[in-house]
Amino acid sequence: MISVHLESGRVTVRRQPLPRIPESFARIRLLAAGICSTDLELQRGYYGFSGTPGHEFVGEVVAVADGSDGAKWIGHRVAGEINLACGHCEWCARGFRRHCPARTVLGIVKHPGAFREFLTLPIRNLHRVPASISTEQAVFIEPVAAACEILDQVKIPKGARVALLGDGKLGLLVAQVLQAHGACVHLFGRHRDKMRIVEKVGVTTELLPKKLPERAYRWVVDATGSAEGLRAAVTMCEPRGTIIMKSTVHGLVTIDTAPVIVNEVTLVGSRCGRFEPAIRLLATHKLEVAQIISDEFPLDHAPEAFAQAATKGVLKVLLRSPR
Amino acid sequence: MISVHLESGRVTVRRQPLPRIPESFARIRLLAAGICSTDLELQRGYYGFSGTPGHEFVGEVVAVADGSDGAKWIGHRVAGEINLACGHCEWCARGFRRHCPARTVLGIVKHPGAFREFLTLPIRNLHRVPASISTEQAVFIEPVAAACEILDQVKIPKGARVALLGDGKLGLLVAQVLQAHGACVHLFGRHRDKMRIVEKVGVTTELLPKKLPERAYRWVVDATGSAEGLRAAVTMCEPRGTIIMKSTVHGLVTIDTAPVIVNEVTLVGSRCGRFEPAIRLLATHKLEVAQIISDEFPLDHAPEAFAQAATKGVLKVLLRSPR
Repeated sequence: MISVHLESGRVTVRRQPLPRIPESFARIRLLAAGICSTDLELQRGYYGFSGTPGHEFVGEVVAVADGSDGAKWIGHRVAGEINLACGHCEWCARGFRRHCPARTVLGIVKHPGAFREFLTLPIRNLHRVPASISTEQAVFIEPVAAACEILDQVKIPKGARVALLGDGKLGLLVAQVLQAHGACVHLFGRHRDKMRIVEKVGVTTELLPKKLPERAYRWVVDATGSAEGLRAAVTMCEPRGTIIMKSTVHGLVTIDTAPVIVNEVTLVGSRCGRFEPAIRLLATHKLEVAQIISDEFPLDHAPEAFAQAATKGVLKVLLRSPR
Repeated sequence: MISVHLESGRVTVRRQPLPRIPESFARIRLLAAGICSTDLELQRGYYGFSGTPGHEFVGEVVAVADGSDGAKWIGHRVAGEINLACGHCEWCARGFRRHCPARTVLGIVKHPGAFREFLTLPIRNLHRVPASISTEQAVFIEPVAAACEILDQVKIPKGARVALLGDGKLGLLVAQVLQAHGACVHLFGRHRDKMRIVEKVGVTTELLPKKLPERAYRWVVDATGSAEGLRAAVTMCEPRGTIIMKSTVHGLVTIDTAPVIVNEVTLVGSRCGRFEPAIRLLATHKLEVAQIISDEFPLDHAPEAFAQAATKGVLKVLLRSPR
């Protein structure tokens, strides 16, 4: 089978044997996958990653481990949660499987990713994709789940004004998820064309002004992936307000903590989310996800796909399985 | 009257006329006041402060504005909330008077402080000090209120293990307030002798180890006043845990935000608190505050008092009114 390999910043395509199916795992034939900013960060050396990346995918279950009761999954289209928890530790017992310290993570930490013709995941990580969600929409289940995580962590009332910083792939999904939830999202970005996508669902957009509105929003989401984003969020957040830190900045971030303390601001780190609300939301077709797709490449053109994904102004790039 | 003046880092003692009493204000004769780390920061140039510092005090009401209904306060021992809110804005209406953007702050922002024989505050800022609380204990009402603020912001269950970083004045109060609340506080500090004070009330203490416990506490309070404190707190905090940022670090702080996001940690800035719970708690005599007092000076020896307060290893230094 064809498999994408990433090492020392170089993306190559290899032939590999079919992956064996560990106990209670399924083998999944890839249908489509998305290149995420994290994949580009892996390419830049984050986590010292070497191997097959890819964690946003939709596929079809083709086989399950012998003796598992997973046969009912065969032939179904699935998305898969990316954290492979140990299932035995205190964290798993407390329901925090996504924080299991022994976890591996699909395409990120010690588990080969989805940019290959066939991948494996524990059956319990799988979620059926309903027929009403197309394969290309389903690629967004994982990042939409990450956006939905905000609502699992922070109570944002309907009608609340929320400032969102960052009009990248994740920012555009967060904007739509919060708007669909009933918030009045004000997106501050740098790209008129990107922001136009979410204007259709009612999001207010504005080119990031030189002079930021100060103490102006009770909720501020930073999805910029930049150190400036967090600093801007602190400026814009009301006293007693909440900043959701939605995108990882690699390297150190320098901030003035004084306004955080003086204004008693709460900062909430936010990462992966549950798939159920994401699937429900995508099934409503209230999100404009197709327009976030900038390009598609067949899996064996992964090097070009990565180069394209890293190009300024490009949003989501999909990889399609060869058959 | 005698008044302490701080300008360009220099502390002097001046003679000044009695302060006039604005509408709905009281004039208060100082009994005792405490030098706080913030006062030392003001001396170092924080806020570009020039004037009379001091915000931890206990005094006796000697006069109230004509026409106010504050006469019942005369002769009573009081502590006073330090934020002077406008009373008209959206913040005041929402009950966030301590976050009123037009506020002045006793001895910090545009309202002369308590290090003078007579000070003024709005009557509504005053709290009676019950007879069961001595004058020297009452000096701690303001910083104990700041420690109690944590419990107004974050729900910490009884029996919860809480890590606390910093064995300075505020750290020792936070340790005792959280322990009195029913938490099991583990204080990490640098001074065996300081930490001994809170061991008596059941706090576990430990010299800050080179190798910090990782992902070990659901609640971590940073009261170090240092950039290292926040970084250590991030290391020690469990996934989905909460870090309370209890002390201002002046200047910029450099942190790695990745573990905050990956572990979905919540950081909560925390400043001043309500006086009511602090007064209730001090009245129980469960807190060891007298031992936190390192020295006392008469008001006209303020320069020596400031020098002493800034000496390494010294805890609270009190200023006493001359009569």
